[in-house]
Amino acid sequence: MAFTFPIRVYYEDTDAGGVVYHANYLNFYERARTEFLRSLGFEQDVLLATDTAFVVSRAEVDYVVAARFNNLLNVTVVIKQLKKASMTFEQQIIDQDGNLISKALVVVVCVNLIKMKPIAIPKNIAKELSSAS
Amino acid sequence: MAFTFPIRVYYEDTDAGGVVYHANYLNFYERARTEFLRSLGFEQDVLLATDTAFVVSRAEVDYVVAARFNNLLNVTVVIKQLKKASMTFEQQIIDQDGNLISKALVVVVCVNLIKMKPIAIPKNIAKELSSAS
Amino acid sequence: MAFTFPIRVYYEDTDAGGVVYHANYLNFYERARTEFLRSLGFEQDVLLATDTAFVVSRAEVDYVVAARFNNLLNVTVVIKQLKKASMTFEQQIIDQDGNLISKALVVVVCVNLIKMKPIAIPKNIAKELSSAS
Amino acid sequence: MAFTFPIRVYYEDTDAGGVVYHANYLNFYERARTEFLRSLGFEQDVLLATDTAFVVSRAEVDYVVAARFNNLLNVTVVIKQLKKASMTFEQQIIDQDGNLISKALVVVVCVNLIKMKPIAIPKNIAKELSSAS
Repeated sequence: MAFTFPIRVYYEDTDAGGVVYHANYLNFYERARTEFLRSLGFEQDVLLATDTAFVVSRAEVDYVVAARFNNLLNVTVVIKQLKKASMTFEQQIIDQDGNLISKALVVVVCVNLIKMKPIAIPKNIAKELSSAS
Repeated sequence: MAFTFPIRVYYEDTDAGGVVYHANYLNFYERARTEFLRSLGFEQDVLLATDTAFVVSRAEVDYVVAARFNNLLNVTVVIKQLKKASMTFEQQIIDQDGNLISKALVVVVCVNLIKMKPIAIPKNIAKELSSAS
Repeated sequence: MAFTFPIRVYYEDTDAGGVVYHANYLNFYERARTEFLRSLGFEQDVLLATDTAFVVSRAEVDYVVAARFNNLLNVTVVIKQLKKASMTFEQQIIDQDGNLISKALVVVVCVNLIKMKPIAIPKNIAKELSSAS
Repeated sequence: MAFTFPIRVYYEDTDAGGVVYHANYLNFYERARTEFLRSLGFEQDVLLATDTAFVVSRAEVDYVVAARFNNLLNVTVVIKQLKKASMTFEQQIIDQDGNLISKALVVVVCVNLIKMKPIAIPKNIAKELSSAS
């Protein structure tokens, strides 16, 4: 039962090849993770005010079918692995007709932005993530 | 004798219409202003470390001819007006064949990012800007 | 009674100054215009398939208050002037607390992308735009 | 002896965390691949005019150290594997002080954009790529 967030493709997301520019799928994945955290009750601007952020440390993205301008996509979020200071998300992008557009594994580390060092995921967040995974 | 900075159009800058996406010209104008300040001896990361930044408060952009993927553009920078806490830039984007692609008036305010309030442009910068205008 | 479209600020929209990067407001304005046209029954990918697009020919943007990461913004769309081949939109961005973040005048021209020449706005669209303005 | 292309970090590339936004490294990698092809004598707008493009089908990116506003980065390009219709690039981003910022494996497929099907890399390009790998 994956968390799912709808994203519309606008001109800004496309390129002269007529399809969504490959880097922009990472935006879509990031937006969905942000909304997933929000659905668990966590607002990342509150985190950021304490100099804490979830930072991507690795991304593996497969581009299966090209999405196009004005497509309405669904982006899924599943926690694949939860560690003390990091987590791995398994994500997919599906189009209106159910076609798999892209899939990704994204490793995110909880970081103190002042020291730029990994820190433990705050306990209240870790607890909710654990329930959700 | 305007300051001129060359910018190549990559896929990331284009959209499904086959041309440079309109918002991205503002990136090109910003890059050229950054390089103009650098040419005067000022690095904006040094400014940013003192919570000072030049923030755009108004932009008027005319899109004359559409630039395309792989075009090599020249972006010009001229100071049109210099005030205590702000300045107005007159900028143009010209393609390889000398065609005017876009022109803009951009008002930039010197801001303290903590208070989000305008402050006087630092004296050493104001002096160089004055010489250059 | 302006058309209004909600937009969430994600990390991708912000810059190292801690606020929304100025060029990205043009994305927000564009998304709202796209949704405004959709609300009138027009899908721009259908237009694009006939090599027709609405292309921005001029934008005047005032940046009033900086929006920040995770803000939920409302973007309004009003047709200020409707001509045979172009129209002028008056748009605003308002934050959750009702503060004016930015306002813009955007001139959009209906263009044949093959010839890159202005053409009359298709009649069925012009009719709906006229009713909405 | 990797092909190397310098890239400056501008405000547009950063986010509110104060560092380069993770998706934007894919832009840097793409720009370097474009310049690598140009260094071999191939302009991709010429390819695009024949409805041919190199499309990313997979990207694995490791984010090692965060790059910051105004950093001057070097992006390398090495062909790791060359096939009939695709190739795998091994790329790195290094900062001014020689620190590894990011590394990536990027699989690129030669595609006919009308049919959205893989096609053999044009012979003249394949020959140069083979010499360069």
